[in-house]
Amino acid sequence: MEFTTRHQGLDMDSLPPEFLITPNPDDPRLTEMVQGIDQTGAAIDTAVTVERPLTLYLNGQEIVTMMTILDYPEYLALGYLLNQNMLRQDDQITAIQYDEELEVVVVRTECRTDFEEKLKKKTLTSGCAQGTAFGDVMEKFEKVTLPREARIRTSWLYALTHKINTAPSLYLTAGAIHGCVLAQEDHPLVYMEDVGRHNAVDKIAGWMFQNNISPDDKIFYTTGRLTSEMVIKTAQMGIPILVSRSGFTAWGVQLARQIGLTLIGRARGRRFIALAGQERIVFDADWRQHAEEEHKHRRKGARDDD
Amino acid sequence: MEFTTRHQGLDMDSLPPEFLITPNPDDPRLTEMVQGIDQTGAAIDTAVTVERPLTLYLNGQEIVTMMTILDYPEYLALGYLLNQNMLRQDDQITAIQYDEELEVVVVRTECRTDFEEKLKKKTLTSGCAQGTAFGDVMEKFEKVTLPREARIRTSWLYALTHKINTAPSLYLTAGAIHGCVLAQEDHPLVYMEDVGRHNAVDKIAGWMFQNNISPDDKIFYTTGRLTSEMVIKTAQMGIPILVSRSGFTAWGVQLARQIGLTLIGRARGRRFIALAGQERIVFDADWRQHAEEEHKHRRKGARDDD
Repeated sequence: MEFTTRHQGLDMDSLPPEFLITPNPDDPRLTEMVQGIDQTGAAIDTAVTVERPLTLYLNGQEIVTMMTILDYPEYLALGYLLNQNMLRQDDQITAIQYDEELEVVVVRTECRTDFEEKLKKKTLTSGCAQGTAFGDVMEKFEKVTLPREARIRTSWLYALTHKINTAPSLYLTAGAIHGCVLAQEDHPLVYMEDVGRHNAVDKIAGWMFQNNISPDDKIFYTTGRLTSEMVIKTAQMGIPILVSRSGFTAWGVQLARQIGLTLIGRARGRRFIALAGQERIVFDADWRQHAEEEHKHRRKGARDDD
Repeated sequence: MEFTTRHQGLDMDSLPPEFLITPNPDDPRLTEMVQGIDQTGAAIDTAVTVERPLTLYLNGQEIVTMMTILDYPEYLALGYLLNQNMLRQDDQITAIQYDEELEVVVVRTECRTDFEEKLKKKTLTSGCAQGTAFGDVMEKFEKVTLPREARIRTSWLYALTHKINTAPSLYLTAGAIHGCVLAQEDHPLVYMEDVGRHNAVDKIAGWMFQNNISPDDKIFYTTGRLTSEMVIKTAQMGIPILVSRSGFTAWGVQLARQIGLTLIGRARGRRFIALAGQERIVFDADWRQHAEEEHKHRRKGARDDD
């Protein structure tokens, strides 16, 4: 492998430590100070999130250019390819090469992937993988089974949202960013941020793949809305429980019910709504003991995000 | 044309009326009631936004499947193709056919488009238009010139954000949605919403194209973050001023400065920050007369959105 495999040999039988990966707002590569003016016309300096175009190749094939904060390009590359069904869990990765200067990342496999075979034989609609990918994605989604025995205790839910809200993050420093967290019980394990929400999800998928992490007993938390795409990705990653502080779309709910995914949204402070997979929820906390969400933890400025 | 061209012959020399198009939260096709449970385990009913997959064809070519609320599929189709440079301003559209049952929309042109020619000759990278599209998009972006004489008065900015915040919207009803508004002076003209922010932008682009609306004196407002993609789209649409309640990315700022776009973010209540194109701003309002943003106008729940 061209980069250090972190966390290999992680003992996942006992509960892992919290925040194996967490945002590093002090990393100078991730934010930038810029000058501007405020509503009075006065000159001000403000921190903004860095965002760069990263072009991804699978062997010789150019796949996509993604706007990202470039903190974990290798995990992003792996996760993207997995979540787009361009790479399968059993494909042998021989290298992941990130060139910081060219802003390119190449994922190489032992054998030509199924995706590339289809392209070669022009089985895929020429010109846009996006169109066909949707059909393939739905086909694969319908075959997903999620572990029924997984549980989420409301005490864990409250602990998780509190820990996530109070963790240092680029959001708190510079705004304009999305976050996702992979958790186990009341432990946030991996907290990834990015300008694009799907990038943050893909980085987690890449990390799980790289470290051979089982999804069965995990909880996925996102600041983003519970849309069909979010539900599909979570299910594809094999994670049975999805939580967000944001709202739902009807199709997101429908797909979650179809696949047996536990879907908990509008999770703020002591409140939440579950619209699918309610049977996995264990009401062990007295919700009245918990505080309403403090204003400072509300995400500044915008609507429920994408 | 297969659908009624609205607003044709609009007199744009005088200030048009407000809200030619505005969200209709009462449209039963756009939200759905679903049953679930809350944090006490009690059964509740809640409204969620409808989201459906819409597949877009350009002549015979399948392009993409988009998740959308299906209120303006024709504008979305047109705007998407324009903003992706698959259609040019001078292409002759002969039909836009939306099939509600199949969830398909086909845009037909007089002659084969430049994009299709490239596909046919395999000039485009096979397999993924997204990879090549980025290079093409940046090339086109660099050629954009925006009108220097355009202005935004702070009195207009305050009036606009107030009117937009108080307009009925799907957001207020069901959440999980993004909005964009095309404005002129202190008049919001077209307010589009969608589950995907780029869909809302594309619908406005489609409306402008269909109604032959000049972008030169327009202001574009988004609830979304001011990322590179947002700046590029606004510039491609020829609109010189972009406003958001959300934050910025560094590359968004850089591109805005490069192209001479006025970029105003974190516009909430009486506050805002301008990081590019400040010369177009006329400080005619006494900001201290305006109230701080009321809590109820804060977008519930989530971070600065995508």
